[in-house]
Amino acid sequence: MAERERVKARLHVEQSLAVATLGLDAARAHYLRHVLRLERGDRIAVFNGRDGEMAARIDGFGKGWCTLSLEEKRRDVTPEPDLWLVFAPIKRARLDFLAEKATELGVAALWPVFTQRTIVSRVNTERLLATCVEAAEQSERLTVPTIHAPAALEAVLARWPSGRRILMCDETGGGAPLADVLARQGTDGPHAVLTGPEGGFARGELDALRKLPFVTPIGLGPRVLRADTAALAALAAFLALSGDRLRSPPPRAHAS
Amino acid sequence: MAERERVKARLHVEQSLAVATLGLDAARAHYLRHVLRLERGDRIAVFNGRDGEMAARIDGFGKGWCTLSLEEKRRDVTPEPDLWLVFAPIKRARLDFLAEKATELGVAALWPVFTQRTIVSRVNTERLLATCVEAAEQSERLTVPTIHAPAALEAVLARWPSGRRILMCDETGGGAPLADVLARQGTDGPHAVLTGPEGGFARGELDALRKLPFVTPIGLGPRVLRADTAALAALAAFLALSGDRLRSPPPRAHAS
Repeated sequence: MAERERVKARLHVEQSLAVATLGLDAARAHYLRHVLRLERGDRIAVFNGRDGEMAARIDGFGKGWCTLSLEEKRRDVTPEPDLWLVFAPIKRARLDFLAEKATELGVAALWPVFTQRTIVSRVNTERLLATCVEAAEQSERLTVPTIHAPAALEAVLARWPSGRRILMCDETGGGAPLADVLARQGTDGPHAVLTGPEGGFARGELDALRKLPFVTPIGLGPRVLRADTAALAALAAFLALSGDRLRSPPPRAHAS
Repeated sequence: MAERERVKARLHVEQSLAVATLGLDAARAHYLRHVLRLERGDRIAVFNGRDGEMAARIDGFGKGWCTLSLEEKRRDVTPEPDLWLVFAPIKRARLDFLAEKATELGVAALWPVFTQRTIVSRVNTERLLATCVEAAEQSERLTVPTIHAPAALEAVLARWPSGRRILMCDETGGGAPLADVLARQGTDGPHAVLTGPEGGFARGELDALRKLPFVTPIGLGPRVLRADTAALAALAAFLALSGDRLRSPPPRAHAS
């Protein structure tokens, strides 16, 4: 790929990029002007998860707004691994970290599920999405993970999409090693990694999960991993073994 | 394995376990008495990285001390993967997280190295060790990672131990996919994962690293990963593909 002209920032936007000019909301205008201290004429990149990534030049700032002129396309959308992370929510600092790392690693969706032993009773999905957007901007991703509305594990399993396999992190040691499971059943097709809360799944939940034809319990080695470590380890190992591994990052395109 | 009697805590100690009674220091005595609110007669487990894990009963507390009677052996030391993490230090909150996760995943040693673009100028190795000890206690590990004294990357490479391969996380996309590298060269023998600072390795560092016969640049997929994410992804994928994957955690032995 030819060396691309560097840009000073990379922003996710909601709007279509099939336009000549784009208005940014107050938060993004503030970020460009007062956090990054950019000026009229500076070049940035924008992406929306659908139209790839476009170069854009700052036309002007006002109180709570900023307009951009869209320039050339920098990258087309490329297919990403169809891997979800379904997880019992954990404490906030750890959840922020998990969302950031999962986004960088490349998950397509995050789905908080409440299990019997889940201690956290509410998930701030707006905050979760903001963390994912920031991680996507930083990591040169062209999409932002979808955040599914939090729901009870039982309800989620009852209407589970057909054809999507669940790799369940089984902290009791009952699962086969992840690499062996993937060598056997492959990494093609839609998948999800499922992790329990700090205290693990309840006995009845484990029994029910093991009976479902689309669930495979997996083991992650001899140590007892925290819920967030288990999630990251399973995602990283899955992606290292999937077709995603064959692709390289784009040339560094903005100062972070 | 037979179900073992549960213990109320799991503590790493420095002393030999080939004794009948063991005195704890003030910090550990405080932790058992005032944080966990344990009492005389309560059973815990202790490990020191050399003698496996022993059951121990609390004999008594005093101001700044606690004595334990050692009881039966619960587990023998088992060989662990000989995998080091050599990393340019990062901001403190991220470093704590990285040390915790690396310990849970099973690294044998952590080695902070200063590179040309490393911003952090000092590493609190005592704090780093304390984080690793706590993660080892929580994760049923029988050892605590060794913390090597921070040093310049160049000096570390100049006296690199013979026979230990370095897997260098190459954020420029120049490396082959990790899974392919490991399929080719295997996971046997001593290894280290090397990650650069937030801003990446300098051009001259990359050139020098690539020339070393014991260094293999690796790629971690199409996104640009933060330094800590790259480290965790490489460790998790390596361990998922190594013999370590074949072992299971011990039965849950203490409430965390």
